[in-house]
Amino acid sequence: MVKVGIVGATGYTGAELLRLLAQHPYAEVVVVTSRSESGERVDAIFPGLRGVVDLVFCAPILEVLSGCDVVFFATPHGVAQALVPQVLKAGIRVIDLSADFRIRNIALWEQWYGRSHSAPDYVPRAVYGLPEFNRTAIADADLIACPGCYPTSVQLGLMPLLQAGCIDLTDIVANVASGVTGAGRQASIANLHAEVSDSYRAYAASGHRHLPEIQQALSDIAGDDVALTFVPHLLPINRGIHATLYANLTDTEVDVQALFERRYANEPFVEVLPLGDHPQTRSVRGSNYCQIAVHRPAGGRKVVVLVVEDNLTKGASGQAIQCMNLMFSWPEISGLGAAALTP
Amino acid sequence: MVKVGIVGATGYTGAELLRLLAQHPYAEVVVVTSRSESGERVDAIFPGLRGVVDLVFCAPILEVLSGCDVVFFATPHGVAQALVPQVLKAGIRVIDLSADFRIRNIALWEQWYGRSHSAPDYVPRAVYGLPEFNRTAIADADLIACPGCYPTSVQLGLMPLLQAGCIDLTDIVANVASGVTGAGRQASIANLHAEVSDSYRAYAASGHRHLPEIQQALSDIAGDDVALTFVPHLLPINRGIHATLYANLTDTEVDVQALFERRYANEPFVEVLPLGDHPQTRSVRGSNYCQIAVHRPAGGRKVVVLVVEDNLTKGASGQAIQCMNLMFSWPEISGLGAAALTP
Amino acid sequence: MVKVGIVGATGYTGAELLRLLAQHPYAEVVVVTSRSESGERVDAIFPGLRGVVDLVFCAPILEVLSGCDVVFFATPHGVAQALVPQVLKAGIRVIDLSADFRIRNIALWEQWYGRSHSAPDYVPRAVYGLPEFNRTAIADADLIACPGCYPTSVQLGLMPLLQAGCIDLTDIVANVASGVTGAGRQASIANLHAEVSDSYRAYAASGHRHLPEIQQALSDIAGDDVALTFVPHLLPINRGIHATLYANLTDTEVDVQALFERRYANEPFVEVLPLGDHPQTRSVRGSNYCQIAVHRPAGGRKVVVLVVEDNLTKGASGQAIQCMNLMFSWPEISGLGAAALTP
Amino acid sequence: MVKVGIVGATGYTGAELLRLLAQHPYAEVVVVTSRSESGERVDAIFPGLRGVVDLVFCAPILEVLSGCDVVFFATPHGVAQALVPQVLKAGIRVIDLSADFRIRNIALWEQWYGRSHSAPDYVPRAVYGLPEFNRTAIADADLIACPGCYPTSVQLGLMPLLQAGCIDLTDIVANVASGVTGAGRQASIANLHAEVSDSYRAYAASGHRHLPEIQQALSDIAGDDVALTFVPHLLPINRGIHATLYANLTDTEVDVQALFERRYANEPFVEVLPLGDHPQTRSVRGSNYCQIAVHRPAGGRKVVVLVVEDNLTKGASGQAIQCMNLMFSWPEISGLGAAALTP
Repeated sequence: MVKVGIVGATGYTGAELLRLLAQHPYAEVVVVTSRSESGERVDAIFPGLRGVVDLVFCAPILEVLSGCDVVFFATPHGVAQALVPQVLKAGIRVIDLSADFRIRNIALWEQWYGRSHSAPDYVPRAVYGLPEFNRTAIADADLIACPGCYPTSVQLGLMPLLQAGCIDLTDIVANVASGVTGAGRQASIANLHAEVSDSYRAYAASGHRHLPEIQQALSDIAGDDVALTFVPHLLPINRGIHATLYANLTDTEVDVQALFERRYANEPFVEVLPLGDHPQTRSVRGSNYCQIAVHRPAGGRKVVVLVVEDNLTKGASGQAIQCMNLMFSWPEISGLGAAALTP
Repeated sequence: MVKVGIVGATGYTGAELLRLLAQHPYAEVVVVTSRSESGERVDAIFPGLRGVVDLVFCAPILEVLSGCDVVFFATPHGVAQALVPQVLKAGIRVIDLSADFRIRNIALWEQWYGRSHSAPDYVPRAVYGLPEFNRTAIADADLIACPGCYPTSVQLGLMPLLQAGCIDLTDIVANVASGVTGAGRQASIANLHAEVSDSYRAYAASGHRHLPEIQQALSDIAGDDVALTFVPHLLPINRGIHATLYANLTDTEVDVQALFERRYANEPFVEVLPLGDHPQTRSVRGSNYCQIAVHRPAGGRKVVVLVVEDNLTKGASGQAIQCMNLMFSWPEISGLGAAALTP
Repeated sequence: MVKVGIVGATGYTGAELLRLLAQHPYAEVVVVTSRSESGERVDAIFPGLRGVVDLVFCAPILEVLSGCDVVFFATPHGVAQALVPQVLKAGIRVIDLSADFRIRNIALWEQWYGRSHSAPDYVPRAVYGLPEFNRTAIADADLIACPGCYPTSVQLGLMPLLQAGCIDLTDIVANVASGVTGAGRQASIANLHAEVSDSYRAYAASGHRHLPEIQQALSDIAGDDVALTFVPHLLPINRGIHATLYANLTDTEVDVQALFERRYANEPFVEVLPLGDHPQTRSVRGSNYCQIAVHRPAGGRKVVVLVVEDNLTKGASGQAIQCMNLMFSWPEISGLGAAALTP
Repeated sequence: MVKVGIVGATGYTGAELLRLLAQHPYAEVVVVTSRSESGERVDAIFPGLRGVVDLVFCAPILEVLSGCDVVFFATPHGVAQALVPQVLKAGIRVIDLSADFRIRNIALWEQWYGRSHSAPDYVPRAVYGLPEFNRTAIADADLIACPGCYPTSVQLGLMPLLQAGCIDLTDIVANVASGVTGAGRQASIANLHAEVSDSYRAYAASGHRHLPEIQQALSDIAGDDVALTFVPHLLPINRGIHATLYANLTDTEVDVQALFERRYANEPFVEVLPLGDHPQTRSVRGSNYCQIAVHRPAGGRKVVVLVVEDNLTKGASGQAIQCMNLMFSWPEISGLGAAALTP
């Protein structure tokens, strides 16, 4: 079994890594670190892992990670960049779930994250971990920058259109909604049950940190600049992202349904729904699948793409494991084949 | 006290009329009809009205309505058009919450509702019950066609921009989400708690019945044709509509915040939020208020309008009572001044 | 209009006082205090009050309260006792929603609340604000100790049985469940949406702070010691308490349905449901009503009482206003007659 | 691979069997039947199984089941008894998730289920499928009557106390709450999201169908008659049962924590929590685990047992697969080792 370490495992993406890796046939978690919970049993913090994960949190120092073959960073932005250089020098491969190595333009990163980057030399070395776009590069990488949850959904929804070159790149709208685990596991009034449940709202409508990542990624896919309006919303659910994407076709003769089906025919985790269908976030709850439907209202030039994923799975920890599977040449679905939990 | 009848009071808009009218200072419900629950106490069906409403459902026949000054129809589409002509002939004013009299183009109505219209001659007589656009006409009307829940939110969100003539009318996107009471109170698998809760999805992305109503209304406001892409979504909440509206400014010098504040300065039920704010559906839960915020991401030509309303109140029964208040020359907020129930 | 002050209005019971008092015909809130939000508009913190409450928080000092006729304390335990003596000396009546003046045995209070009581001399002066038991005393009081939310539900459910002397006092079980607003509006991980929603659990099964209050109150009602097992549970809802109470009848000939109906025949806010019915928390959501049903499984000696109330309304702020109505000799239902918000 | 058939797979327990068996290492579903959906793809009805289950529903006739080694019945009560005799005669083992073969007293069954039993001769042949009580008998059985969801939780919570003979059998209270999937997947108004969400209530307080099953099972465990008060409640969650059990100790010297830990030390799916802890339904969401905590309020004679399980997994389909594992001599946790989905 390949030995896995997880740095920062008291958040939701860390817990999701633990849940998923407990079923992995080739990898085994041997170290979980937490600054705040060092010495505490994992199942005392996450009682849902009781009987399944038998580990104790330890402090996040290089020594405890030295026996690992690969280390996942499930930390807030700014943490991984401090430790990753040493881990890589120790010959350990790194899969970072945070935003630290996603954005190639360091100045842009520093502007949106409000701090200076401490390991800018490592950014070019990082491979952007979207298997549907970067499969080969991921397999050879020793440092993966996993995509953000919102960016994953927007890229998968627009990729067939961008690669076919059939939409106007100057006016795309991404109206995206996320469950509350996207906000992390920190004490706050804003995310209390009594504040969030039975309600819905947009946030950061004037600008969100994921925008520069999405712009960079879409431009990479399209091979040209893309102008996107991105408005995130907060859903009163725990898991799930739903993207409603609007673009104008430059070629109204294209069969968009066939285009999507063809593009994703061999992708293990992207399901294109039958014509006329609408995906639901619950259909991918806890699974690594992404489901997509394409509509053309009244058969016009506007194409509407609907995408669902679980923000903690395909949007974070599941995709990170999918990258690991590629890095170790295992079947890509290893440990990720479970169906969604519905209802 | 003005005497009120409610036809079809076993649905959610009927129950909402009962809840709101129980607090009305000038009007009193004297008749509630229901074909299925005739003879049953209202509080046996709606135990939340116990101690507040002391009425028994009776069959929906003209005779029982004859003592009323005004009758609300809270019936599925197709029902009001059969009874309304007789009620009007009896000198009773009518406020219809269904879609029966909203669309002037009868052929269009028949196409979307899949049946022939039995009272087409009454459609021109109906006044569209959006006080913010039609206040004077409503006061003089004897037949009100109350706007749909989705159309109300889209119109209030776009009205200042349309009336100022500062957006491109050929490409507007309305991404709108509704709570489940919008689907009515009928037995169904699709709307079970286990099917809807902890999930989110779009529906009718290729075309929804509210689209022709919205198109007609926006064109009336703009004085020109409007091309709209409208995608409704289902929220796992009971009440509330959230519209996220996207348009391109033709005049980027306009101060949209000031435009909205000016337009709605004297509207009792439309609140324009401070610059940078985002409305939440819970902030209008159970109230007749609509809250609106306007954003211009990165200060560009795209304007994003965020609108929330309660689909049962401002989107249906509250707005119907607001129309009644105008028809009887009462203060417009009579019976509608209560704050939202938060949390 | 009687002038009202609210101390500590950034919590849920404070916000509920503001919501309810905005509709009160005889009282008007003129001062709201908050240490943390001083200078901030109330509707910036509670956007659901926008358009309805036009006030700014000020610091909680005696001077700002001096123009009030009555002051509500909606503060965490320990706060009211520091300020109440001065307020009373200024001739202002006090209605305290916290636990500070509920328990006559000071040592017991200090044991459960883990601090010394700074105004023990005022405890005997306080009248326990349960109108259904203490109506006359409340009318004459200048200091009201409002019952806790759990204690209110248990007392109203057991009162008819205790006063009739027909149950065994040595073995009563109160299995009670509360919505999350009962935990207050403080930043915490435990009450995040992602931690609470779609889940259910007991807490404090070995002992909860409300137990001594319930024991004292039930003994007052019964005129004898009562032994109670009380287990609170956390519901994934915002508002509502549901008590399931189990007792053994000492007289199995008693008609418990008739007993309850008779006892509460003249109570404006207690509704005894028809035989065989089961109350739902949503039926009292946002209202001051309490609904009760009584069952005898298989007609045996075990009596099961089901009680619902809204923990923020009848369990806190509504009941406090009911006390104020009695203190000022207004109709008891003034400002409290609104129906529940359902759905 | 052992070949599995599922009769009645359009309900929630059928879908849960499909979800769980898709991960089973030794068993493979080859036939799924549905009278109403015959000819339809499984993933059209359950889109959460898309990409994981590639089957089409067929009509429930004996012929299609003939190639199976074992057949699960996930049908409403009354269906299995009509078909099971033929299936058994064909040499196929049967695991019935319905109530058809649970109750030995046929008259009692007929009284509670309101119909005559068509296969009473098979009832004695059925083995009650609670592995923690009946492991050996299950391994040898060809007809399993799986316990109901409520009965499973009550039995697991009381078994250590009953087997130790340390509680009073004449007065036990089981206050139990279930998520809405317990009510099945049928169209109804009562279980709509708008009727169930953000609410809580008891039901069937005067008598519920699971009572005779629980009484029989507890008496089997205790070796004596047990008098139980059982009140079920409806939680606004999809999955999960929480039992709060109250009994009086006849021996107050017993160390109940040690008793529970000892009793369940070797049970793969029963976790006794540390002293003072409280289980949450979400900790077993989607998993086959049951978590239990024991409390003695104020150290008295009352013992309070808290039990959580997922009603669809340990309370139905997971437990049925656990029985299958025993019947085929596979490791008991085969296909059932996944952790709960939290959050």
